[in-house]
Amino acid sequence: MSLFPTVAAFDAALASLPAADAPCRAAAGARQAQLTKPAGSLGRLEEIAIFMAGWQRRARPRVDRGRAVIFAGNHGVTRYGVSAFPPEVTAQMVANFARGGAAINALAGAAGLDLRVVPIALDQPTADFTVEPAMNEAECLIALNIGAEAVEPGLDLLLLGEMGIGNTTAAAALCQRSFGGNATDWVGAGTGVGGHGLEVKREVVELAIACHAHAPATPFETLRRVGGREIVAIAGAMLAARLHHVPVVLDGFICGAALAPLAAAMPSITDHILAGHLSAEAAHGRLLERLCLSPLLDLDMRLGEGSGGAVAAAVIRSALAAHDQMATFVDAGVSAG
Amino acid sequence: MSLFPTVAAFDAALASLPAADAPCRAAAGARQAQLTKPAGSLGRLEEIAIFMAGWQRRARPRVDRGRAVIFAGNHGVTRYGVSAFPPEVTAQMVANFARGGAAINALAGAAGLDLRVVPIALDQPTADFTVEPAMNEAECLIALNIGAEAVEPGLDLLLLGEMGIGNTTAAAALCQRSFGGNATDWVGAGTGVGGHGLEVKREVVELAIACHAHAPATPFETLRRVGGREIVAIAGAMLAARLHHVPVVLDGFICGAALAPLAAAMPSITDHILAGHLSAEAAHGRLLERLCLSPLLDLDMRLGEGSGGAVAAAVIRSALAAHDQMATFVDAGVSAG
Repeated sequence: MSLFPTVAAFDAALASLPAADAPCRAAAGARQAQLTKPAGSLGRLEEIAIFMAGWQRRARPRVDRGRAVIFAGNHGVTRYGVSAFPPEVTAQMVANFARGGAAINALAGAAGLDLRVVPIALDQPTADFTVEPAMNEAECLIALNIGAEAVEPGLDLLLLGEMGIGNTTAAAALCQRSFGGNATDWVGAGTGVGGHGLEVKREVVELAIACHAHAPATPFETLRRVGGREIVAIAGAMLAARLHHVPVVLDGFICGAALAPLAAAMPSITDHILAGHLSAEAAHGRLLERLCLSPLLDLDMRLGEGSGGAVAAAVIRSALAAHDQMATFVDAGVSAG
Repeated sequence: MSLFPTVAAFDAALASLPAADAPCRAAAGARQAQLTKPAGSLGRLEEIAIFMAGWQRRARPRVDRGRAVIFAGNHGVTRYGVSAFPPEVTAQMVANFARGGAAINALAGAAGLDLRVVPIALDQPTADFTVEPAMNEAECLIALNIGAEAVEPGLDLLLLGEMGIGNTTAAAALCQRSFGGNATDWVGAGTGVGGHGLEVKREVVELAIACHAHAPATPFETLRRVGGREIVAIAGAMLAARLHHVPVVLDGFICGAALAPLAAAMPSITDHILAGHLSAEAAHGRLLERLCLSPLLDLDMRLGEGSGGAVAAAVIRSALAAHDQMATFVDAGVSAG
């Protein structure tokens, strides 16, 4: 049985989000205060350990079962030339993931994460959302549930990533519909489109916003109208992870855009989510501000496919190693200052 | 036989620094351009791979032999109360390193680095450098060579870190003597000193600068007069690493301060060095600017002992995994856009 059989079930899940476990957070914080270091001197590594403790519901969190899931989808708006790459590249890169040749294969491996790749109806690009909704209701629910099915209780960490030629255009439209502003605020170079291509991309986003201006501003309708299958799946996976108390590390702009409609309606949806990095995509910083998320890394990356989040997962692993393995002042016989 | 038997030998080494291998850098850059991603989309991960290729002198660099070395020393100026911790903590933390209970044990382990801890004459704090040089010439040469001996050709990566109660005071004096400014520019909270303690710390640094104002402004004299044994050892290790073509990742403010006198005289000394992170110590950003180094991470850490550099080493490992393992466009049959 699927987690989101109806739109009402999706809405209900978003309206009743579980919270982090306060006693486990407190226990992890107390442990940090006793470890052999000046209080607070591990900075964000301490925050990560406490965050992970609250969602894993254990005072000493770990990443034994870490999973990266990359969803892939195709986009009708590629017909306008919004990407530097042809839409065939989505499927070619999915094949590359399967053979182990992409950045995410190497980076997930380095971070000790299992990698799953979930292509969604690549032979059925979404509809042209400048003139009609990208998906009908059934298609959008299917994508949400494909996302939800990639997550189960007991995962220690979930990294979400995406592949979909054209999807920074959908992401920009999602951001604008969720948080306002205009296309200039949200449209960037993506994989490397510039000049006239960038103008076209902005125009496509403005057309999309205008086309759906009178539609209900609910998370589901926004995802369905201007999202894409892989983006909707990410939203479904994020919400399912929350229901299962699985902490999530996000990759870049597109993953953040998948979160935008949910966060606009329910800001606490981001509580179980770490922003893995600030990407080089121009609007990502603005988006993270609106999501009230502070990125762990800023390495000028702009690849997608989970790559920045995977590097962040290696940092999360380091944070948990320190939290778990360090001695306390009492254990070590060190003066506490 | 020691690498720096005399001051002249140290000066000569600094005056004739080897360069990175240009063909290996070019080969790594060419490989990055062929990997299945938009050009430049891995951002600093690409830079790291090319940097490592140049110093390791192989087109596909690796970290099979990565080493973290933590030097420890004690400081005469602790008598003024410049630290939140008593000087006994230096030896206590060295014992904690030996037992595996410190942050660096966990973080070096997570990054796959071997850890060496090198305490230097902990029962002999440096002299009070507000009234006389911290070390005599022989003591300073010994510390330089202890640093040099921690490095040998064939290491893939060297992480340098330190432990020494009071050493942010020495670090501030090194920065001011190397790059000018005043004590307010360079003195920060260190492990957590505040209020009156911070004023005392500034005053100690100003006294030190005044005491040695007429001494020769050479790297050796600056290290000897206002440095510390662990700081001098770091300088020796950095220079030895350069001679052996071993790339270095630095930790925080104190490690950067060890580099300051060398860089003021010979800016290209930083060419084989990555700044692992921007620490929370207030002056670290200013110091990195003067060193023309851009930190990989910014995680609000301020522990020292190599901790920030060790987290950066995990990121370096991720960068090299992508560089080595990814398929090319031709291999993968992906359209290059």
